[in-house]
Amino acid sequence: MSSQAPHPTLLIPGPIEFDDAVLQSMAHYAESHVAPGFVKTFGETLSMVRKLFQSSNPAAQPFVISGSGTLGWDIVASNLIEKGENALVLHTGYFADSFATCLETYGAKATQLKAPIGERPSFEQIEQALKEKPYKIITITHVDTSTGVLSDIKRVAEVVRRVSPETLVVVDGVCSVGCEEIAFDEWDIDVVLTASQKAIGCPPGLSILMLSGRALNTFQTRQTPPSSYYASIANWLPIMQNYENFKPSYFATPPTQLVHALHTTLSQITARPMSERYAIHAQASDRVKAAVAELGLQQVASNPENQAHAMTAIWLPEGLAPPDVLPGLLKRGVIFAAGLHKQVATKYIRFGHMGVSVTDPNRSDVDKAIAALKEALAEAKQAKGL
Amino acid sequence: MSSQAPHPTLLIPGPIEFDDAVLQSMAHYAESHVAPGFVKTFGETLSMVRKLFQSSNPAAQPFVISGSGTLGWDIVASNLIEKGENALVLHTGYFADSFATCLETYGAKATQLKAPIGERPSFEQIEQALKEKPYKIITITHVDTSTGVLSDIKRVAEVVRRVSPETLVVVDGVCSVGCEEIAFDEWDIDVVLTASQKAIGCPPGLSILMLSGRALNTFQTRQTPPSSYYASIANWLPIMQNYENFKPSYFATPPTQLVHALHTTLSQITARPMSERYAIHAQASDRVKAAVAELGLQQVASNPENQAHAMTAIWLPEGLAPPDVLPGLLKRGVIFAAGLHKQVATKYIRFGHMGVSVTDPNRSDVDKAIAALKEALAEAKQAKGL
Repeated sequence: MSSQAPHPTLLIPGPIEFDDAVLQSMAHYAESHVAPGFVKTFGETLSMVRKLFQSSNPAAQPFVISGSGTLGWDIVASNLIEKGENALVLHTGYFADSFATCLETYGAKATQLKAPIGERPSFEQIEQALKEKPYKIITITHVDTSTGVLSDIKRVAEVVRRVSPETLVVVDGVCSVGCEEIAFDEWDIDVVLTASQKAIGCPPGLSILMLSGRALNTFQTRQTPPSSYYASIANWLPIMQNYENFKPSYFATPPTQLVHALHTTLSQITARPMSERYAIHAQASDRVKAAVAELGLQQVASNPENQAHAMTAIWLPEGLAPPDVLPGLLKRGVIFAAGLHKQVATKYIRFGHMGVSVTDPNRSDVDKAIAALKEALAEAKQAKGL
Repeated sequence: MSSQAPHPTLLIPGPIEFDDAVLQSMAHYAESHVAPGFVKTFGETLSMVRKLFQSSNPAAQPFVISGSGTLGWDIVASNLIEKGENALVLHTGYFADSFATCLETYGAKATQLKAPIGERPSFEQIEQALKEKPYKIITITHVDTSTGVLSDIKRVAEVVRRVSPETLVVVDGVCSVGCEEIAFDEWDIDVVLTASQKAIGCPPGLSILMLSGRALNTFQTRQTPPSSYYASIANWLPIMQNYENFKPSYFATPPTQLVHALHTTLSQITARPMSERYAIHAQASDRVKAAVAELGLQQVASNPENQAHAMTAIWLPEGLAPPDVLPGLLKRGVIFAAGLHKQVATKYIRFGHMGVSVTDPNRSDVDKAIAALKEALAEAKQAKGL
């Protein structure tokens, strides 16, 4: 039995349902951010972030910073690329547009390689683009939360290393870390930026990043100083290194309660092999995708290769919009999200199936959601005379 | 009785002890950031931020953003001043140096007006400086957490309006909001930036700001776009306006649990007149300052006019350093902070007396701390043969 007050099950692509122990950690009593107890908690948390990324290379560096996932874009844009340098932005939905805007805010030149909605740029297109001009970074949205499109970051990284080996491979993993496979060292990724509130299973408020030695070297050999202060790696790097070595350090007050919650969820996650966690999410995803097909519905992501394993963006039947279906789901105790991709937002809904909702064997959130979706759709169609 | 696990009483100048109800709000079950329940909570929270600043001018605008207090500097530096423009930074400790560095990161020219340690620039010096060149902004650390020096922001604002009326008056209120008097409208302040974990009494992780109509107008008439993305007022202003009007809105996922905790503490704070809260802090401060004098000790802040009401920075007796005294305090269940001002950090300690530790009549934190300080000092002197 959960100790949480009764509430509808939150099955959007983040924030997600949280484990009781994680929420209890949010209520941790006040601690000094530089006292031994918290220093130990924060240091252990950073070490567990390495495990989350299956990384053992000491040259790589985890960061945990107070902020939303969006802050990760500023950290990339103000530290790893300089004014006038080129960024290749692979576009699979809403979030690439925003990342490109962030890069341009700090003076980079962002070239977007756009795929039609529900698809992703081909490896041939990426290779071609990389040959056209020197790119300091390439950005890939691992899973675009607006479309549920999954990118193959392993193969993109291979293409980059072959064609433009110095280009930094930057992964927006906000909707993928903790549910989609990431082998940071083995795949030779340079940056993964993410947030706490999706498959990591911690309440929102933490910007989490992993940087490779190559990325840190790019930062350290900048011609100009970082163009942000709060997002400056120069300010945060010594702090993270000190805490991981159990030394207190101060740049800005860390969000002590959120760090405790992250410690709790990462302790749970890293107690089992990451491969097992990926497999559980894939199995749940298969069940959801099969149920969607059975209902005669299509996904926004166009084919199985492109489809995320922890969320499903579902086209509604012609004549129905999210406000026709979401209240029926809520009535049945389930919350899905409306569409987010501006061009088509009124035509689809999003179902998040990640974290405890799929990993906790005592929860039947996915089955409940599938049943609710079936009923709510039938009810909506009937109401519209469809 | 508190429902929190037994722990030493945290009496540093932030984070502070938290009320049970506030910590319980941190453990709130998962909610969608765009669902009606959370939208109402966030909207009400923003309205209560206005009350916290005793502001009723609809042209002013509160902001609550995921991040530490430091983020507030970036918001000022990247939105309210442009490259090459002048900022006058009044220096009363560590935090002015950092704010100046932040301003310069975004291209402003920061001129620091420095006072000796424990003092503040005189009104004559400020007037003189303002006459020397056109300043876009003046920044004042209301209470510098490193020294406990209190600035008179009301009188500084008066000087600015008389001598350089277009200059924006920017107050760093991280260690003052919720304990030192601030009449935002009446004193004609343009910006107060603060954080959640000090006298506001909410765990760390929220950057909180109040901007005047004049500040917003300065932003809206910029010649160049904002020089940050995550800290851009252009991105956050519509979000805050929408939530306060109970409309969901998305730029970055808000830290839902922290917003609940802020709602809880602001409900408690704004249930009583702010004047009463200031008076309670002043009374507790008088008791602390009297006890410090009785122990034959001096404060870093040089005279009563300069001394903060929610923290006291105390010079240690010659021959003692923080590591000689802090363990003795901890043994007695009390945590103070070491010095922070780089030039003199080893010579003083800091005692934070704010929030529930002084407002909750069921707590005797301040008396306990005074007794512990007396004993720990005697013990340390004896150990050193002083």
